[in-house]
This record gives sequence, structure tokens and C-alpha cells, in this order.
Amino acid sequence: MEQDQFADRVISRSIALQAPVVAGLDPRPELLTATQERSAEGSADRLARAYVEFGEVVLDGLRDVVPAVKIQVAFYEALGPAGFEAFFQTVGLARERGLLVIGDIKRGDIGTTAQAYADAFVGEQTTARGQDVDAVTLSPYLGSDSLIPFLESCHGHGRGAFALARTSNPSATQIQDLLVDGLPVYRHVARWIEQWGSELIGQEGYSSLGAVVGATYPRELAEIRQAHPNMLLLVPGYGAQGGTAEDVAAALDDRCAGLLVASSRGILKAYRQADETGTNPADGIRRAAEKMRDEIRTAWDRVRTESPPNA
Amino acid sequence: MEQDQFADRVISRSIALQAPVVAGLDPRPELLTATQERSAEGSADRLARAYVEFGEVVLDGLRDVVPAVKIQVAFYEALGPAGFEAFFQTVGLARERGLLVIGDIKRGDIGTTAQAYADAFVGEQTTARGQDVDAVTLSPYLGSDSLIPFLESCHGHGRGAFALARTSNPSATQIQDLLVDGLPVYRHVARWIEQWGSELIGQEGYSSLGAVVGATYPRELAEIRQAHPNMLLLVPGYGAQGGTAEDVAAALDDRCAGLLVASSRGILKAYRQADETGTNPADGIRRAAEKMRDEIRTAWDRVRTESPPNA
Repeated sequence: MEQDQFADRVISRSIALQAPVVAGLDPRPELLTATQERSAEGSADRLARAYVEFGEVVLDGLRDVVPAVKIQVAFYEALGPAGFEAFFQTVGLARERGLLVIGDIKRGDIGTTAQAYADAFVGEQTTARGQDVDAVTLSPYLGSDSLIPFLESCHGHGRGAFALARTSNPSATQIQDLLVDGLPVYRHVARWIEQWGSELIGQEGYSSLGAVVGATYPRELAEIRQAHPNMLLLVPGYGAQGGTAEDVAAALDDRCAGLLVASSRGILKAYRQADETGTNPADGIRRAAEKMRDEIRTAWDRVRTESPPNA
Repeated sequence: MEQDQFADRVISRSIALQAPVVAGLDPRPELLTATQERSAEGSADRLARAYVEFGEVVLDGLRDVVPAVKIQVAFYEALGPAGFEAFFQTVGLARERGLLVIGDIKRGDIGTTAQAYADAFVGEQTTARGQDVDAVTLSPYLGSDSLIPFLESCHGHGRGAFALARTSNPSATQIQDLLVDGLPVYRHVARWIEQWGSELIGQEGYSSLGAVVGATYPRELAEIRQAHPNMLLLVPGYGAQGGTAEDVAAALDDRCAGLLVASSRGILKAYRQADETGTNPADGIRRAAEKMRDEIRTAWDRVRTESPPNA
């Protein structure tokens, strides 16, 4: 092992910061300042540059508050090659600030194609530029073939991956809830994830192959947490999508860790608000992230008081 | 409807060319000429330029032989922003040659993220440059939410999409074959695909929302063909992956259509071979595509003779 396991790195930072939180960097024109939005209108290149400026300020606000950021490649990809360049620049800016980076790419393909996706996001050339991500999100529908190149990177280079299990959206039920031998498909997927990641369990007790489970489905989150205590869970859907601190608190372990609860709009909207009120946007982002951290911490304290682990 | 439906366009061309075939454009260094491979070594930018040169010759060979090309974004994406640029340039070159383009992107995400992916590949700015694709491949794991922006593009702009049902790889079985009420998951996915695409059935009898079903699993292909006669099937895995003409022939309709059988390496290897033997590489590509077309046509003739439709 050339580097500490991803799960150990993110869990230890999460505990040190008392923040089982990742901020989602999902840039959109309407999240920029009104001036930025206007001046970038109609030009993908200008919008890509504005996304890098926006990202840099957001990352300044997040450093030393959250262990990791989740950067959504789709919003950059929408801008074509200039946007793709902006994505990797932003990854580099996050790494310079000591933040772990989860590339929210949800790729899933096989063989040499899966290897090509791994090359794009965790390959040698990307790594040489300091623009490689620490972990990625992946789709599990094609089975383990689609994870192999990324798992090799988990083993050899201390990286992580999160496969989709139960997503946060309304139509998640259509495929993921189909019942197989009395258990929904997403529970079978979670079993596979546990099996695929069984050799990646680190000193903190979590595997560097984790699962994505939406905060919007608290019962499903609790089930997966209970069935797979070693599974690191990336939990989107907090805030704007409807997930609450109470929804996630019960699934945290006795160190207030084991989840990475992700919020995007709830944090990012502070950027424009700060601009509109004449305050420092990085401070606004920091306060929004601290607020989310404190909400979850408070809910976790309450859960622990009501049902202590040794009761 | 601003434009003819994708399914009608691709089926009518497929019948006119007697070729239910798409060529997969999956560029790799070892498929280039030895000179190109050597001179691009170690530089993503040079390799991206070589992929465009390679693609242009391949597309010259394919025009008027196959109705469509399937361009695999991952191999371009592996080269970073320059590769992403090369992907869109290649899409433009294919369109200039009258070939329909299937972007093999296998994306799958929700809400504004799904819209961002649609913007990247079929959005206004991409379309304005003539670099938009006619159809995409998508992952179905998140349900209909992840298809909505692409379905809107099918309705409004004559585009198509293919959702993964039964993929061609060995580990496809892990999730896709789980049994739900006596039917494997991929059959339930196929039912959803039929439902989601029910309003996109064109004059040729096929829906512009199709399914990906691997040629390497002929029994599963036959089942899906029988259960969903209106479903346009994109069938990878032909040739190098092990699928044969006999495996696909039985699933073709009485016009030798309804499938788009995809082969990549089996066709693309003719490029380097032509260079090594001092023959024209575009001619080599053309002959390889014609050979595949003829194999499938012959197998289809044989199937029809052995079990005529009105017997």
C-alpha cells in the first residue's frame, strides 16, 4: 500500500473536524453572483472560467471545516472541453487546500472502457498534474467488471469508490426496490458492494469501497447501516432534496462518523447571498457548512442521549 | 415533431443499406498505425489529434455502408479536455459524412445533473456546432428520473436513447439476473424501457427509446426481442467479445432490421492492418464493415429459410 486507505483518511479527518459532511460542488449559473452570471451568459468558455473562480472561493470557505468535497462533473461537462478543463482545475484547487475530493462521475462501463474512465479521473497523467480525485461514484448495474480498474486504484493508490445502492430521487424505487427473495435490489447491491470491498477495510473499520444511499429514504439508510456496519456511506439528498439531520443522525457511529452527508445547494447558495449582502462569500460558505455540521452533530447528540449505545 | 424520429431514421437507413450494423469507434493507441502510435506516445494532446485523424479515415470507410456509428466517449475522456474536444470533433466528422451518431456515454444521474449531461451531448450549444449526437446510451439504475431530459430531446428533436438492459460482460449476471417474481431484473428493466418509450414508436414500428442487449447472451436477446417487438436493440459484443452472426440473426425482423449490432475491434483493426500491408485504410475499414454486414445478412437468410415467418 503506497498510501493510507481512503476510508481511513476521510474518517479520521471527519472525526477530527467533528463533521461527517461533504460539500457538493455543483456549479450552476444561478449560484454565481449576478455580475458573474451576466458576464458569462452565452459563452461556455466564460462560464467555465466563472465556475473555477466560484469553486476557488467555495473551497476557501470549506477548508478546515469539512473533510471532503464532492465535485459533480456533469455541470462542468455541460460546458464542453472548457468545462472539462475547469473540472480538473477545480479538483487541483481542492487538493491544494487539503480537501479530499470525491469525483461525482457515476460512470459504469466494462473492460478497457472502464479502464479508460479510471485513466481519466485517477490515471497517471491526471495524477502527475495534481488533478486526480481521491474517490469516485460509480454505477453498479454492470456488476463488478465495471469497478475493477477503480478497485485496483483503491488497493494500489489509497483511493476510494462509492457504488450507487439506494439513490435519493423519487424514481429510485422503479429498479432499486424490486424484491428479490424478500429483499429489494438495492440490498442485494449493498451485499455485492460489501463483498467487492471486503479487502479494503481500514484501521478505522470502514471499507474504501462504499455505497451511495440517499438521505431522503431514512428507513432504507438505517437498514443498510445495520446490515453493513463496515460500509462507508455517501449520503446525498440533505437539505434542498428534503433529508434532515434527524434522518441521518441515527445512522452515524459512536464517533459521529461512518457517513459522508452531502449537501450542495444548501451550502452553495451562501455564495450569492453573501455577494448580495456585501459580506465575504468564503465566510458565508464556511458558516453554511458549519451550520450543517452543527445540525447533524446536535441531532446525533440527541439520538445518543435518547438511546445510548450501552442501554 | 421538428424532425423525423430517430428510430425511423436509423431503421430506414439500416434497411436501405441492408446493414443492421453500427460500427463502434473505440480508439486506442494500438489501433493507430505504428507511426501514429509512436509519435503520440506520452502526450494526451498528440494522441487526441491522432484519434481525430484515425476517426476521420474510419468514418470515410464507413459512410454508405452502415447507418450509424457508436462513439465511445470514455476513450476520448481518458485524454482529458483535449480528448473531450476530439470526441466532439469526431461526432461532427461523422455527421458531415451522413452517419447517425450514437454517443456511448452510459450516463445516469438525476434532476439538474441529468439535464447537464443532456446539455453536454444534445444541448443547444453542441447542436449549434453540429457536434451533437443523434442518440445516447444511458444507465437505468436510477429509474426514469435519469432519462427525462433525454426523452424530452427524443420527443422534441428526433433523438434516441438506449438504456442498458442486459449487458455483454461476464459480471452482468450479478445484478441483472437477480430474479424478481420469476423474471430477472433485466426483463423488468426492459418492461420499464418499453413503458418509458411507448410514446416514441415511429412509422417503422420501433421506439426511439431502445435497449442495450449484449450479443454474447443470445438466449436473453431472443427473450427480449420476443417480449418487446417494438424495442430497438443496440447489440454490442459482436466479434471480439464472442457474439456471432447466428446469435443475432434470429432476433432480426422480416426486413432484417430492428437490431443495431455493434462491432468495434473487429472493424477497427483493419486500419492498422491496411497500413502494414500498404493498402488504403479507409478501404480496409469499408471491407471489414461489409464483411460483418454480409455475415449477418447470410445468417439471417439461413434462419429465414429454415424457419420462414409464415410456416
